[in-house]
Amino acid sequence: MRLNHGGKISGEGVGKSTQLSRLAAVLREQGRDVAVTREPGGTPGAEAIRALLLDPATTLDPLADTLLVFAVRADHVRRMIRPALTRCAVVLCDRFTDSTMAYQGHGLGVDRAAIKVLARIIGLKPDLTIILDAPPEVARERLAARGSSPDRYERFDAGFAAKVAEGFRSIATAEPERCVLIDASGPADAIAAVIANLVRQKLFE
Amino acid sequence: MRLNHGGKISGEGVGKSTQLSRLAAVLREQGRDVAVTREPGGTPGAEAIRALLLDPATTLDPLADTLLVFAVRADHVRRMIRPALTRCAVVLCDRFTDSTMAYQGHGLGVDRAAIKVLARIIGLKPDLTIILDAPPEVARERLAARGSSPDRYERFDAGFAAKVAEGFRSIATAEPERCVLIDASGPADAIAAVIANLVRQKLFE
Repeated sequence: MRLNHGGKISGEGVGKSTQLSRLAAVLREQGRDVAVTREPGGTPGAEAIRALLLDPATTLDPLADTLLVFAVRADHVRRMIRPALTRCAVVLCDRFTDSTMAYQGHGLGVDRAAIKVLARIIGLKPDLTIILDAPPEVARERLAARGSSPDRYERFDAGFAAKVAEGFRSIATAEPERCVLIDASGPADAIAAVIANLVRQKLFE
Repeated sequence: MRLNHGGKISGEGVGKSTQLSRLAAVLREQGRDVAVTREPGGTPGAEAIRALLLDPATTLDPLADTLLVFAVRADHVRRMIRPALTRCAVVLCDRFTDSTMAYQGHGLGVDRAAIKVLARIIGLKPDLTIILDAPPEVARERLAARGSSPDRYERFDAGFAAKVAEGFRSIATAEPERCVLIDASGPADAIAAVIANLVRQKLFE
C-alpha cells in the first residue's frame, strides 16, 4: 500500500496544491502510475458533500462535522483510493485523517479518542505524510495573492489557526517515521526538490 | 432523559407517522411538553443531508452512508434533542440508532461493531423504543395508498427488506426492557391505545 499525502500547518497558502502537482509530475516521469486526489472529495458523492462542508453558511455541530468528513473519507477510500492501490498506483492525497485530527480534534475540540476510533473504522493509513510548515504571514500572503473568498475553515480566527498548527506538530512528533515536517517558506523549486528526494528515500529505496 | 421513538420492521407503510402524531397529541393533552422529530433530519444542516441520503441518485459506499447517518444524528442530538431533554420535554423521534443497525448493519452488511462504536460516540439512548411490526403485504398496501415515489431505502429488494426485519427483531430480542414490538396490522385506533398505554406504564408510572 502506498498512500502519500501532503498536510499543512497553518491554514491555506502553504503551497500544497503546487507541490502535489510537481511531485505527481516527477513520479510520472519515473514511469509510475500516479493517482492524485483530495479530501474532502475525490468521488461524485464525496464532492457533493465537500461543497456542504466548505460552505460558510453551513452550521454543523463539531462532532457532526467530523462524522461528515469521515463519511466522505469512507466513500473516497472504498471507491477511489483502494482500487488505485490495488492496481499498484501511487496515491497522492491532498489532506487525510491527520487534517481531521488537527482541525476538528485540536482546532474544534472534538474528542480525539473518537477521531482515532473513526480512523480505525476507515482502516487505511498513509505510508508517508508530508506536512508543509509555513509561517502564518507567508501563508496569509499566498492566500491573498490567490484572491478567492475564504472557505468555512479559513474563516475561523487566529486562535483556531494556532491550535490547528499545534495539532499538526503534535501528530508529527507522535509519528516521526510516517510524518515529515517540511519548511514551506522558501521558493517552490527548492521545496519540490526536497519532497521528491524524501519520497524516493522513504518509499522507493 | 426521555427519548422515545417509533421504529418499524418491514420497510415503510407500518403507520409510524400516524402513531407518532397520535402519541404526541395524547401526551400534550396530559399537559406535557412534547418535541416531535425525525431522522435523518431534525435540524437545518441535517435536513440538507437528509435530501442527499434519500435521493435514489445518491450512490454512496455503505460505510460512508452509515457515517453520514451518524453525522446527521450528531447534529440532531446536540442541537435539537439534548436541549429538548434539558427543558424536560418528552422527545418522540421517528427513527434513531436502531434503524441504522437494522438498515445499514443487517441490511447492507456494514460492520455492526463499528455501528455500536458510533452509537457510543453519539452517547444517547432512547428510554423506550417502539417497533411497529406489520406483515409485508399490509405495509405494501399502505405505501401504495400513499402514492409517493419510493426513496433510496425503499428501492432495495425483498431480500434487503427481510434482512432489515430480522435486524429489528434481533435488536428487540437483545434489549427487551427498552424495545417493544407492537403488531401494526390492526386499526390505527387500537394501535394508538396500545402505544399510549405502554408509554404511560413504561415512562410515567
